[in-house]
Amino acid sequence: MTFSSRLIEKAVEAFASLPGIGRKSALRLVLHLLKQDKSATEQFTAAITALREGIRECQVCHNLADEAVCHICADARRDRSLVCVVENIRDLMAIEDTNQYRGVYHVLGGVISPIEGIGPGDLNIGTLEERVRQGEIREIIMAISPTIEGETTIYYLSKKLLPLGVQVSTIARGVAFGGDLEYADEVTLGRSIAARTPYIVK
Amino acid sequence: MTFSSRLIEKAVEAFASLPGIGRKSALRLVLHLLKQDKSATEQFTAAITALREGIRECQVCHNLADEAVCHICADARRDRSLVCVVENIRDLMAIEDTNQYRGVYHVLGGVISPIEGIGPGDLNIGTLEERVRQGEIREIIMAISPTIEGETTIYYLSKKLLPLGVQVSTIARGVAFGGDLEYADEVTLGRSIAARTPYIVK
Repeated sequence: MTFSSRLIEKAVEAFASLPGIGRKSALRLVLHLLKQDKSATEQFTAAITALREGIRECQVCHNLADEAVCHICADARRDRSLVCVVENIRDLMAIEDTNQYRGVYHVLGGVISPIEGIGPGDLNIGTLEERVRQGEIREIIMAISPTIEGETTIYYLSKKLLPLGVQVSTIARGVAFGGDLEYADEVTLGRSIAARTPYIVK
Repeated sequence: MTFSSRLIEKAVEAFASLPGIGRKSALRLVLHLLKQDKSATEQFTAAITALREGIRECQVCHNLADEAVCHICADARRDRSLVCVVENIRDLMAIEDTNQYRGVYHVLGGVISPIEGIGPGDLNIGTLEERVRQGEIREIIMAISPTIEGETTIYYLSKKLLPLGVQVSTIARGVAFGGDLEYADEVTLGRSIAARTPYIVK
């Protein structure tokens, strides 16, 4: 791609450095910004700068927040005896979007993955133990992806937390609601039979 | 989508305001920026701000440029008697990327489109006439999309420019090289037979 301007080239490179944006898309975004008012570009960069300058990590659960404590941890109506452990804030947001969970969270910041060089020391595990030791927590729900790394992480955390006298559970794993058994993968289907749950007529 | 932070929400909205970026992708970009060093975000916003502050329109051809005259118009090796008229700088860049054109350009800034409310007065037509009147230009190549709006624009420009004693041509329109006749659309195929060119054995 031949650029008529170093400024355009630099801006295209900036956008193309983001995940999932190639040079052609980046050029489209740059030309879009140039077509808008100058104030639109100013608002765009201001929002990103404000984010980068102002964003904080919740000192309780490691969620991203505007304050020292995130709005979930600060919410008196949430059940603080129930902690949902998630890998990252995208998973946290997905659970929040279900509108079905009224406990609080703990963001690990990843899962144990020897291949990627991520050990327990790289995750927010110490602060989770600390929270459990304070005695208010009754149950920890592991909402971690059922992958090999995820299962390893759940195993590691359980070994650490169970001796502290807290209950540990995982989110239900099985065939997805609305899913067709025919298309479920073998591992999921096999495990969902082994881990069958009693059917209760209400 | 529930955001734990107003700052994240604002930044997501900023990215989602760009064409082709939805809120989910925007969130991915925002979380990517947060994972990077602060300096990476600073570089990103600086490139965009520098672009918006520094970009200029070439006073000869309306190409985007860092200087008052773009590097193509300023290049003494380019043939200034040959002007290629394009809709926008993306088309200009596509032609430059072929490495086969050694003339100069004129960027119209769009095509005549009554539906979108774009009339001749909204395009860079006056400056093109002015360039032709200066007498240096021998031929104008219309490299404009063969759409109804494009054809209208070519017709309008030709009516204006031919009386000034300049030659007007359009880029060849027909079946694409490497294309299969079977899959060519009827209009293109029909016209490519009507506008057949003599085959010369070299």
